[in-house]
Amino acid sequence: MAASVAVENLNPKVLKCEYAVRGEIVIHAQRMQQQLQNQPGSLPFDEILYCNIGNPQSLGQQPVTFFREVLALCDHPCLLEKEEIKSLFSADAISRAKQILATIPARATGAYSHSQGIKGLRDAIAAGIASRDGFPANADDIFITDGASPGVHLMMQLLIRNEKDGILCPIPQYPLYSASIALHGGTLVPYYLDEKTGWGLEISDLKKQLEDARSKGIDVRALVVINPGNPTGQVLAEDNQCDIVKFCKNEGLVLLADEVYQENIYVDNKKFNSFKKIARSLGYGEDDLPLVSFQSVSKGYYGECGKRGGYMEITGFSAPVREQIYKIASVNLCSNITGQILASLVMNPPKVGDESFASYKAEKDGILESLARRAKALEDAFNNLEGITCNKAEGAMYLFPQIHLPQKAIEAAKAAKKAPDAFYALRLLESTGIVVVPGSGFGQVPGTWHIRCTILPQEEKIPAVITRFKAFHEAFMAEYRG
Amino acid sequence: MAASVAVENLNPKVLKCEYAVRGEIVIHAQRMQQQLQNQPGSLPFDEILYCNIGNPQSLGQQPVTFFREVLALCDHPCLLEKEEIKSLFSADAISRAKQILATIPARATGAYSHSQGIKGLRDAIAAGIASRDGFPANADDIFITDGASPGVHLMMQLLIRNEKDGILCPIPQYPLYSASIALHGGTLVPYYLDEKTGWGLEISDLKKQLEDARSKGIDVRALVVINPGNPTGQVLAEDNQCDIVKFCKNEGLVLLADEVYQENIYVDNKKFNSFKKIARSLGYGEDDLPLVSFQSVSKGYYGECGKRGGYMEITGFSAPVREQIYKIASVNLCSNITGQILASLVMNPPKVGDESFASYKAEKDGILESLARRAKALEDAFNNLEGITCNKAEGAMYLFPQIHLPQKAIEAAKAAKKAPDAFYALRLLESTGIVVVPGSGFGQVPGTWHIRCTILPQEEKIPAVITRFKAFHEAFMAEYRG
Repeated sequence: MAASVAVENLNPKVLKCEYAVRGEIVIHAQRMQQQLQNQPGSLPFDEILYCNIGNPQSLGQQPVTFFREVLALCDHPCLLEKEEIKSLFSADAISRAKQILATIPARATGAYSHSQGIKGLRDAIAAGIASRDGFPANADDIFITDGASPGVHLMMQLLIRNEKDGILCPIPQYPLYSASIALHGGTLVPYYLDEKTGWGLEISDLKKQLEDARSKGIDVRALVVINPGNPTGQVLAEDNQCDIVKFCKNEGLVLLADEVYQENIYVDNKKFNSFKKIARSLGYGEDDLPLVSFQSVSKGYYGECGKRGGYMEITGFSAPVREQIYKIASVNLCSNITGQILASLVMNPPKVGDESFASYKAEKDGILESLARRAKALEDAFNNLEGITCNKAEGAMYLFPQIHLPQKAIEAAKAAKKAPDAFYALRLLESTGIVVVPGSGFGQVPGTWHIRCTILPQEEKIPAVITRFKAFHEAFMAEYRG
Repeated sequence: MAASVAVENLNPKVLKCEYAVRGEIVIHAQRMQQQLQNQPGSLPFDEILYCNIGNPQSLGQQPVTFFREVLALCDHPCLLEKEEIKSLFSADAISRAKQILATIPARATGAYSHSQGIKGLRDAIAAGIASRDGFPANADDIFITDGASPGVHLMMQLLIRNEKDGILCPIPQYPLYSASIALHGGTLVPYYLDEKTGWGLEISDLKKQLEDARSKGIDVRALVVINPGNPTGQVLAEDNQCDIVKFCKNEGLVLLADEVYQENIYVDNKKFNSFKKIARSLGYGEDDLPLVSFQSVSKGYYGECGKRGGYMEITGFSAPVREQIYKIASVNLCSNITGQILASLVMNPPKVGDESFASYKAEKDGILESLARRAKALEDAFNNLEGITCNKAEGAMYLFPQIHLPQKAIEAAKAAKKAPDAFYALRLLESTGIVVVPGSGFGQVPGTWHIRCTILPQEEKIPAVITRFKAFHEAFMAEYRG
């Protein structure tokens, strides 16, 4: 191996960065999957069940037919000239594809677009936002991105100058935020969500953490809020959101609103409100609050993770700052056009009266209702086990149960040089093939231990998942109970 | 506007970064295009001709039919069950789509893949590389990316610790490199390509620049080579490549080989050799040279810029360093699956005997032969003008003529607070609607002035482009001649 490049002389920010969602346990799972392929029957289970990541289609969720019809026609526009397609594609998919192609310069789905994304698609997204919120949205504020992650990186890159710049993040948080802050050399300023009140977000704690950071000389630039929560699954109440918006305005913070689970709500007493809607309802305009909303085609009922579509809507930034945002976007030329088209579709799905509406609605409702049932079944199962407590999954795609580990298990983990929750998750994987992410990957109150488990296994598999989990957990507790 | 975020408190690395390919002149052009739409006839031309960027399909190049057939079928796999598709798709596109779907877990083109890309597609890419080079390639060495740019950023992020880390880059260079080095806070160490010898790369100059940088305390980590050249269009000779490889080995440098124009060669006496082939031919293996090769679906005869597909092949890095590369890739989850599929297709196009082979070959040859004619026509036209000299475009998609500006023009530029080549390019745009990029965006020998112009306008438009350009240039020279 050439000696010029070694771990010791790499960028220390890279070394510091961690991303547990695809970390050690997942790599171990991939090795076991290879083993199952090469030597079937060599493990105590016959499949690896990836509950580590919100990746619905990998577990069998089917894409929404209308979306895929439009994508196929846009990928191969010659089809639109053929009579035969009328029996293969719905009429509204055909007309939508024609309409989209008409907005693309030279009808070229293979050309780089404007660095913010194709204007006509941004118009469609802005219209979708306006219709969702009841407040206007502007295509010039939309940056279409390859999923939500590049938008988050872009904002961190823009705001973080050095380790004295801080970003307030919830704990537990989705580790994209900690990874991106580490890669850009900033400081993560944690605020704790309160597990006892269903992962409540307390303004008093926000305030305390902000002041504490400031007293240490940290210039806190932004507040990250994930709503619905990841990994915690809670949905913020409207008055709580109002307080958050006021807090950001008063403290001069950029509000980075991760709203990628906006369609994933499973309880009747909660609904999704965008932070932009909340801010506008309070009468706050461009002068009051720099606000970024992230959305993705990967989540919701669409679950199109592999298409890498998403957008960020930025409001409340001055023209010179927007120019810098545009410049960074332009260095990467543009996001992929298939993802751009899909982002416009999820924000403007079929409407009543469209040929596809009935099938679209049936597919959407089927997925969301099933996710709600799965969330409830897993939540109940966790709460029925010794030493596990689990808040309600009001939204998103995850449960984040607390595992009250016996002291002997904690000692065994220590002996194995693992965090106790990583030790538990590894044992779970080795016994059952179920892959979850240890809570330490998301952050948690010191001395508490959690796992994040998606609600995504297919519904007919849920009873077996629960049975396997229960058997493992009971054996684990029997082994380590004091 | 909220005062918390202002240009003054943004990341200075962002402020320092420049990207001329989509810079001031392009933004000005977009404004003029809007004006033409709103007030037709209000400008002395009726269309903006974007020769600033290698974006073939935006100027009318058609995608290769076979590739798009496969993409459409993979986007909407239900089609594969219908009898009617036999009259709409070629048999080999149908079988290729089935074969690709069979390699994707759960056949899910909407799922996140392995962070390096779908294994079966990486196998296909590795097979394509092996067949191109005559040396083995390994799917584990392939990282499929959203175009080539994210791979370049990833390597810069990995290697650059601070401003004392240097990257040797050609001048002129594609400004992705200068932008990425600036964003990651490193130092660009320039080496000059010799315009007099057709943009030759002199090892003696490389050596001189390296030693000069080292004497200033710069730790030079890597050498960037763009072959075929961008913006310069030259194709390196094999013995020159051997010397470069030996230089990197002797000096302990990572060789970052931008090989995205590997299919774009327009002269009979040159051929493309990958640096990996050169290194292996010299007997160099994993222990001798850390080497990264970047490839993209955006260039070649395919020109699928909007699909954002590409890969990097990394060899010669130790396992712990590779783990860090994998970790950064995993933070972004994966590249888009459509681009991944396309990357596998361009590295494994139809073969003799496949139903699509004849039409595929006709499309490919038609595009490449036309590009060669366009390159020659533009090169001749430039060389026939007073005060312009232009090297041969042996490859890539650009010409980089030198404009020997009269002193009066240089003074007028100074008065207008513009670089002389930016002044020229702006005047060109305002007179003709032709968008080119000033040489200052790529770097050039101080006191020389260039423009980069793509060879991509459709062939039937080339005579009109030349006529417009000639009329502008003659008037410009008449105005400023001493």
